[in-house]
Amino acid sequence: MSNLLPGERIDELQRNGYRIIQNPEKFCFGMDAVLLSGFARAKEHENCLDLGCGNGIIPILMEAKTDGKHFTGLEIQPESADMARRSVALNDLQDRIDIVEGDIKDASKIFGASSFHVVTTNPPYMTAQHGLTNLHEAKTIARHEVLCNLEDIIRESARLLVPGGRFYMVHRPFRLAEIISLMVQYRIEPKRMRLVYPYVDREPNMVLIEGLRGGKSRMTVEKPLIVYKEPGKYTDEIYDVYGY
Amino acid sequence: MSNLLPGERIDELQRNGYRIIQNPEKFCFGMDAVLLSGFARAKEHENCLDLGCGNGIIPILMEAKTDGKHFTGLEIQPESADMARRSVALNDLQDRIDIVEGDIKDASKIFGASSFHVVTTNPPYMTAQHGLTNLHEAKTIARHEVLCNLEDIIRESARLLVPGGRFYMVHRPFRLAEIISLMVQYRIEPKRMRLVYPYVDREPNMVLIEGLRGGKSRMTVEKPLIVYKEPGKYTDEIYDVYGY
Repeated sequence: MSNLLPGERIDELQRNGYRIIQNPEKFCFGMDAVLLSGFARAKEHENCLDLGCGNGIIPILMEAKTDGKHFTGLEIQPESADMARRSVALNDLQDRIDIVEGDIKDASKIFGASSFHVVTTNPPYMTAQHGLTNLHEAKTIARHEVLCNLEDIIRESARLLVPGGRFYMVHRPFRLAEIISLMVQYRIEPKRMRLVYPYVDREPNMVLIEGLRGGKSRMTVEKPLIVYKEPGKYTDEIYDVYGY
Repeated sequence: MSNLLPGERIDELQRNGYRIIQNPEKFCFGMDAVLLSGFARAKEHENCLDLGCGNGIIPILMEAKTDGKHFTGLEIQPESADMARRSVALNDLQDRIDIVEGDIKDASKIFGASSFHVVTTNPPYMTAQHGLTNLHEAKTIARHEVLCNLEDIIRESARLLVPGGRFYMVHRPFRLAEIISLMVQYRIEPKRMRLVYPYVDREPNMVLIEGLRGGKSRMTVEKPLIVYKEPGKYTDEIYDVYGY
């Protein structure tokens, strides 16, 4: 491919023949992005925004898996935004997906209040601890709250969503108390949650959560999502989500 | 037994030879109380309070299962408090367990601020909806928030606990957003949570949660607690908790 930069490769997405450009030195998408795109819902007339879209994996998978009308990805890192744009073009999705370069903290200024029906996000999981080095590296920015934190994301999502709009996030269970209390504080009421357990007898390592802007307090916790039947062997549900 | 009232019976608890007086017309303890007593922890020097103790099941099981120094049960319904006292006497536990008649909403006035190391509670799960009849029946009071609500319980627990004291509650997952946001609001930081799934492929129907008064925000979600292997057959973990 002529439009690949040094270190980049193209991976198959097992959906609609779509492919994605990745750079293993910087960041490759993980199971969290795939599970989020399987958990999130978007209907025919709905405009969807992904906050911190990285190489564009979530907008591309959402386009493939849902009925959503249009998809936008917001990404602060110019190299990642460029990579995402090239992946969109590679799949001929320019009329369905826009990639915008910008800061999550300014998202509601960039797009305007109440401008999306659906917001998705696979944000950095770790707080920005003291002693973090490589603050400017793509991997650090994707994993640690260097450029924005959980409250920024939830506050901006509340502004960006129409009343009744839906918020979908994948995160780590150790942050669950913060996640839920911030969602309640910003009136994105948690409505649906699913915990992802690597094995049936282990602690969960991911949480998928859906919130409804302005919803009433009552939520559904879904059946466990179990990743492995045995080492190296996925459960049927994981094979389904991946589209094999 | 000469001290049984009409309709009452004595059940075995499978722990230390302890027994409990119950009245099936009013209220019998359920798996929730047993699971809470297996989830909660109490150390040698610790004083423990159970808010809304009903027939005393949780203080009696906690006395059997933990190293706690002393146990108090607070109960607003005179007949339940009396039944709990007779169960305490039946097991010769008068020096280890006190049953106090009173209102959860006044608990911190009754006992004083910072007076317990551990608070447990198996509160009413359902909100007090319009159309509820039989508002004075023991079963209604135990199941619906007629006499106190979740916020009363969490607010009083925050007052009753010493700094660093621990709060243990069993509740329904559909209230989880309220539970967590109220705990955070009243500075009982959620630290440990376990979801109870009837079967591995079903939604959870109970949540066990531990909070630390004044703790930092970071929690552990534990491995799933699965109740049935197959219909009518408990998992090994449930047999362990019940003490068979």
